[in-house]
Amino acid sequence: MRNLMVELADRRYPIAIGQHLFDDHALMTRHIASRQVMIVTNEVVAPLYLAKVSAHYEDRQLEVIILPDGEAFKTMDSAMIIFDRLLQKKFSRTAHLIALGGGVIGDLAGFAAACYQRGIPFVQMPTTLLSQVDSSVGGKTAVNHPLGKNMMGAFYQPKAVIADMTTLSTLNDRELAAGLAEVIKYGLIRDLEFFEWLEAHMEALVARDPEALATAVERSCQNKAMVVALDERETGERATLNLGHTFGHALETGLGYGAVLHGEAVAIGTLLAADLSSRLGYLEVADIDRIRRLLIRAHLPTTVPEGLSPEEFLEHMAVDKKNVEGQLRLILLKRIGEAHLPMSVESGLIKQTLVSAIALHRPQGSL
Amino acid sequence: MRNLMVELADRRYPIAIGQHLFDDHALMTRHIASRQVMIVTNEVVAPLYLAKVSAHYEDRQLEVIILPDGEAFKTMDSAMIIFDRLLQKKFSRTAHLIALGGGVIGDLAGFAAACYQRGIPFVQMPTTLLSQVDSSVGGKTAVNHPLGKNMMGAFYQPKAVIADMTTLSTLNDRELAAGLAEVIKYGLIRDLEFFEWLEAHMEALVARDPEALATAVERSCQNKAMVVALDERETGERATLNLGHTFGHALETGLGYGAVLHGEAVAIGTLLAADLSSRLGYLEVADIDRIRRLLIRAHLPTTVPEGLSPEEFLEHMAVDKKNVEGQLRLILLKRIGEAHLPMSVESGLIKQTLVSAIALHRPQGSL
Repeated sequence: MRNLMVELADRRYPIAIGQHLFDDHALMTRHIASRQVMIVTNEVVAPLYLAKVSAHYEDRQLEVIILPDGEAFKTMDSAMIIFDRLLQKKFSRTAHLIALGGGVIGDLAGFAAACYQRGIPFVQMPTTLLSQVDSSVGGKTAVNHPLGKNMMGAFYQPKAVIADMTTLSTLNDRELAAGLAEVIKYGLIRDLEFFEWLEAHMEALVARDPEALATAVERSCQNKAMVVALDERETGERATLNLGHTFGHALETGLGYGAVLHGEAVAIGTLLAADLSSRLGYLEVADIDRIRRLLIRAHLPTTVPEGLSPEEFLEHMAVDKKNVEGQLRLILLKRIGEAHLPMSVESGLIKQTLVSAIALHRPQGSL
Repeated sequence: MRNLMVELADRRYPIAIGQHLFDDHALMTRHIASRQVMIVTNEVVAPLYLAKVSAHYEDRQLEVIILPDGEAFKTMDSAMIIFDRLLQKKFSRTAHLIALGGGVIGDLAGFAAACYQRGIPFVQMPTTLLSQVDSSVGGKTAVNHPLGKNMMGAFYQPKAVIADMTTLSTLNDRELAAGLAEVIKYGLIRDLEFFEWLEAHMEALVARDPEALATAVERSCQNKAMVVALDERETGERATLNLGHTFGHALETGLGYGAVLHGEAVAIGTLLAADLSSRLGYLEVADIDRIRRLLIRAHLPTTVPEGLSPEEFLEHMAVDKKNVEGQLRLILLKRIGEAHLPMSVESGLIKQTLVSAIALHRPQGSL
C-alpha cells in the first residue's frame, strides 16, 4: 500500500493506494468513527464490491443506497433520496457516509455529505480509474443541472480516500480509457516527465499491467494533491486541472448526460484546447499530433461527435465556472508539460477551433 | 449607522445597523462588486422595499426572484428556482446574490449562494427583527426537509449584513414579537445585564421605540458576532445559541412549517428548556416565572399549542442536529445569563417536561 497526504491549510487527509485494500479491516474502519454508516453506491458496483465493503460495518447501524449507474443520475433528485433516508433513519451529524463507486457516486455522495446537517464526515472509496486519479481527491463535490455540469456543489474534503486498485480489473475498457484521459492531463499541464513516461508505457496501461497502473495512479494523485494543497478553492493554479473541461462539459451537457463519458469528453476537449493553444501561437502543430497519438493509443475518442453545431457548443460553454460575466475563460497549454492560468479568449477564435474540428472530423465518423 | 465586525479565522465582514440604510447608495454598492446581481425576496417584502433596493443596481444585469412568503417555502424546490434562473441568465461565479427579507429568505438565498458553482458572494439585507438580530449573522444557511428543519445547509458567510432598521416599522406585531424571542435568548444564555435591560425596556421595544430597538439589535448582534467568532462551525459554545430550538424545531416540523413562527416556537421551547433545567436542579421555579413574564410582556406565546402528543414531540426532537447517534442533546440554563454546552438528557426526563407542559397549558388555550 502506498500512502499520500493531501495537505490543506487547516487539515490533512490520507490517500491509500494499493491492491486488496477493501479486504483490510483495520484500514476500512480507521476513518469510520461512527455507529451510523451509510454507503452510497450504484447498480454496477454493488454486485461487485458492496458485500465486501459492508462486511466491515456489520456491527454498525448500516444503511445502503444503490442508485442507477451514470452521469444522468448525478442530480439534486438523487441527493434528495440520500437526505430522505438519512432523516428517516435519524442519522445524526456524527454519522459517516461512504462513496463506493466512480466519479458520479463520489461527487454526489460528497455533496450530500457536505449539505446534510451542514456537513457530516465522508470517505471516498473510488472504484474507477478516473475517480482514483482525479475526482475522489481534492474535495470538489457537485450535482449536475440540465443547463450545466457540476453547477450546484461544495468544496468539501473527505476524511480519507481508499483507492483499491483491484477494482480496476472489473472496469470495462471504455471506463479504463476514460480514466486515462485525466492521467494524461496531469502530464500535459504540469509534468512533462510523466507525459514522456506515459508515451513509453501506454500499451502496458491499456493491458492493465498492475505495476504500470500503480505508478500512473500514484503519480496522478501526487500531482492532484500538490495542486489542491496550493489552491484548495481554485483561485489560481487549481483551474489548470480543468484543461479540456470547458469544451468537455459543453459536450456532456449538450449531448445529454451519459452520451459520452466524462473522460471521453475531456479527451476531445483536450485536443480542442490544444488546437486553440496553437492558434494563439503557444503550441506547434506537431505538439497537437503528439497529444492526439497518445490519446488514440489510450483508446480515447479524438473527434467531436455529431449533434452539436459550433453555435450550440459555444452556448453551452457560456455557463462554465471559470467564465467571468459572460467572458469565456479557458485553460490553454503553453507547451506540453505546462498550462496557462485561465485566459480570456475571444469567442470568434474559439469558434474557428470548433468549426474546423466539426468540419474536419465529422466526415471521418465519430464516437 | 453603527458598524460591527464579525471576526473569523480567515476573514471578517461588517454588519451595518441603522436607519434608512437602503437609501445609502455608497453602502448599498460597496459590497456588490459584480455586474451580475440577483435579488431574492418574497411577496410581502417586494412591494415595500424592492424598488428602493433595486434602484442601486440599475446599471447591472439585475435579476429578481420573488417567492411566496413563509417557512413552508424554505425548500430545495425554492433553491432550484434560484439555480434555474442563475443558469438561464448565465450568471458566473463572480455574480452577487442579495437576500432581501426575513430569516426564510436569508437562509434559502444563502444556501443557494453557497451551492451555486460551489459558492458565489452574497449580502444579507434582513428586513425583520428576527433576521436582523440572529439569522442574518453568522453564516448558517439551510433549507427544510419535511422530516426536519434546516436539515440541508452549509456554513457560508455573507460578504456583509446591511440591517436597515427602518424596515421594522412595517413589520406586523406578531413578527416583531417573534424577533424579541431571539433577543431575549442572548440575555438568557450569556448576558445577564442585557436580560435586565430587557426587563426594564420591554414596553419601549414593543412600542417600537427606535432608540430601544437600536440598542437591542446592536447588543444582540454583538453577542452573536462574538459567539460566531469563537466557534464558527459550532463545535462548542455556538450551540448555546440553540437554547429552546430543539423543542422549537420539533414544534415547527410537527405542526407543519408556518403554523407557528420560528420565534414563537423558540419562545415556547425556551420555557420548556427552562422547565427541564429546573428539573435537573439548575434553575429555581422563580427563574422560570421570571422568564415567562418577560416573554408574555413581549407578546409571545408561552404555552404549547395543541396538535402534538409528547411522543410525537420527542420523535421530532430525535432528528435535531445536536444529537449524537440517537442520544438527545439539549441546551439548558445554569442560571439566567449562562447556558450549558449541549448536554445529553435522558428522554424520560424530557417527556416529564412535555407531559406537564401539555397537560398544564392546553386547558388554558393555546396560540
